[in-house]
Amino acid sequence: MTFNYLKNYRTNIKSTNDFNSFNDSLTMVLDKGMPVSYTNNLMQIAGTYLDFLKFGWGTTIVLNEEIVTQKLEICENFDILGYCGGTLFEIAIIKNKVDELFEDLNRLGFKAIEISDGSLDLNRDEKLEYISLAKKKGFYVLSEVGKKDLQKDNAIDLDSRISFINEELNAGSQKVIIEARESGKGIGIFDDGGNAKVNDVNAISEAIDANNIIWEAPNKNQQVFFVKQLGSNVNLGNISPNDIISLETIRQGLRGDTIDLLF
Amino acid sequence: MTFNYLKNYRTNIKSTNDFNSFNDSLTMVLDKGMPVSYTNNLMQIAGTYLDFLKFGWGTTIVLNEEIVTQKLEICENFDILGYCGGTLFEIAIIKNKVDELFEDLNRLGFKAIEISDGSLDLNRDEKLEYISLAKKKGFYVLSEVGKKDLQKDNAIDLDSRISFINEELNAGSQKVIIEARESGKGIGIFDDGGNAKVNDVNAISEAIDANNIIWEAPNKNQQVFFVKQLGSNVNLGNISPNDIISLETIRQGLRGDTIDLLF
Amino acid sequence: MTFNYLKNYRTNIKSTNDFNSFNDSLTMVLDKGMPVSYTNNLMQIAGTYLDFLKFGWGTTIVLNEEIVTQKLEICENFDILGYCGGTLFEIAIIKNKVDELFEDLNRLGFKAIEISDGSLDLNRDEKLEYISLAKKKGFYVLSEVGKKDLQKDNAIDLDSRISFINEELNAGSQKVIIEARESGKGIGIFDDGGNAKVNDVNAISEAIDANNIIWEAPNKNQQVFFVKQLGSNVNLGNISPNDIISLETIRQGLRGDTIDLLF
Repeated sequence: MTFNYLKNYRTNIKSTNDFNSFNDSLTMVLDKGMPVSYTNNLMQIAGTYLDFLKFGWGTTIVLNEEIVTQKLEICENFDILGYCGGTLFEIAIIKNKVDELFEDLNRLGFKAIEISDGSLDLNRDEKLEYISLAKKKGFYVLSEVGKKDLQKDNAIDLDSRISFINEELNAGSQKVIIEARESGKGIGIFDDGGNAKVNDVNAISEAIDANNIIWEAPNKNQQVFFVKQLGSNVNLGNISPNDIISLETIRQGLRGDTIDLLF
Repeated sequence: MTFNYLKNYRTNIKSTNDFNSFNDSLTMVLDKGMPVSYTNNLMQIAGTYLDFLKFGWGTTIVLNEEIVTQKLEICENFDILGYCGGTLFEIAIIKNKVDELFEDLNRLGFKAIEISDGSLDLNRDEKLEYISLAKKKGFYVLSEVGKKDLQKDNAIDLDSRISFINEELNAGSQKVIIEARESGKGIGIFDDGGNAKVNDVNAISEAIDANNIIWEAPNKNQQVFFVKQLGSNVNLGNISPNDIISLETIRQGLRGDTIDLLF
Repeated sequence: MTFNYLKNYRTNIKSTNDFNSFNDSLTMVLDKGMPVSYTNNLMQIAGTYLDFLKFGWGTTIVLNEEIVTQKLEICENFDILGYCGGTLFEIAIIKNKVDELFEDLNRLGFKAIEISDGSLDLNRDEKLEYISLAKKKGFYVLSEVGKKDLQKDNAIDLDSRISFINEELNAGSQKVIIEARESGKGIGIFDDGGNAKVNDVNAISEAIDANNIIWEAPNKNQQVFFVKQLGSNVNLGNISPNDIISLETIRQGLRGDTIDLLF
């Protein structure tokens, strides 16, 4: 505790590295390809405040194996679960090589996998089977609901979205991610201006246990919205590495936008 | 001097680490939580061109004490004055623990403090007393005029804004900061598009000694505006760490936007 | 190759450090003043995927000579050609000291130079003579077509733009850069919203050998546009250092936006 004048303050320290029993707010950070040594230095200042580091979309494919291994070691040192963006799984589907992907991930040391269908058409049953299969193979499974294409995403109505989440949790997903991409605009529960659709958010969070959802919220105003709407412990994802500290202050009421939490 | 062909060029090298007698343009940089070693590396390339490093809003609270100490050491090595964003003072007001904050800052090694009321309602007299008190305690005092809430900020008319600045300087502030937040939009002297209100800027700069003001100007077009309107030596704040070098080139006419300065 | 499941995949590894005979896609990255050690760490993860590192506009002037030397060494280690933004040449024109600039660049170890007239009025013949002269002095010459001022840039019609490119290539430019600034909006082949003018792009790429052009495309949607329109190997410039890996995934169809390339 740096400041004595704030004793007994909410702290967000991770109490466990058993990723099946998180008991606090979760933060998932989007890594677009940070240098290894920067990643390590960043974790020294901010590593307490994130739980997942997503190696964005297919970036892992263009990195040297040594780089990937070093990054996963850093994750392990800071009790962070590293995993590859769902695009990697989708490419495996396209190439008809899902088994090979599982093997590659095992060899590289990834303990988690994201199962998504944001960029391709995948039969619902097939998606659920892959979730179950990945779970059976021993992976911590995150799955994602939402389409990267705006028109296709808008075609998913609210009831379907809720059903999809439930089905995927039942099939073995430990967390379901609500898609918002890196930009956070015009996708899923965000409108074209990046503003959250309050009714949709409320409906989803009434229907689903908050512990099982991660809301992608790349922009500050979205993070502020979720903290105000769903509480400091809301699970958030696609956080920029440079905003980890900022998000933690938003959660704790230490930034102007949420200072009301302290009153 | 890297380039001989530009001998006798304006240089912005800090000639003193006596922070009470700056005699040149001031640059205040907003640190949202940079890694320690990145901070050190950044200062090796850009440390000559900034004077203040603001540990943004309440970020300092969520950092380890060791991290804070290391960052302050880097500041000292590069003759930079590190201080915490005014939110920290405002939290102390809310918690009724201003004395404890002063003690914490002393213990941690902060030599400067920001007194602001951007996110809470503070009686003018009370604010001025805190400025005087902090000065008396030996701190270099920066105070901030402006509200983080757009409606509240717009309710401050120009005459009041100028009066507030004068009052705070008289009470002991060494620099008064004109609020613009991290975004620089719809606050104080910026409209919703982030464009400066020229009349307001002119009125303030005619009424107040330029040495006593720091204009928050996070965006490039704002920095260009101030350099063109008020000169290369205008004091600017909330500069992103990655824009320190860019700002210096804007000041010196070494970027397209201000190359006219060389004609 | 990190992932076995993607054997025989397009790889973009630079096969040569002979900068006169690139045979693959070129990527030019805009350096606004990265710390030296960050630059080195970034190259360890991404150095394979860029060919040019542009020391943006006049930033080199405000850096210590030691810093410049260290950065050029890093470039050399990773087979990257470092050069200074054209503003440096334009300043030399204004100061009537082009010979001195050539000497400075030689002394510092720059092997390439950018000849531009984005911020000043330079007679066409004069520009072409400087291109020839720089070539004769042994520099790898990049020249830029376009004005940083929107009105002036819009006054260049498409036919003139194509003629200018051809003239500069004939005069000795190895690559002609199509100006888009750091922002990528309202300049050259981009409209105010940052969207590419498809007809202009097509006309230019039909008239000029694709190997001889570098399109500045700072924003992701622009990079996606060029890859879809002109192919994975299109030469792109003004890429942010943090987007090098992302761009490579866009080229390879490993990000949602271009995953169609894999079908």
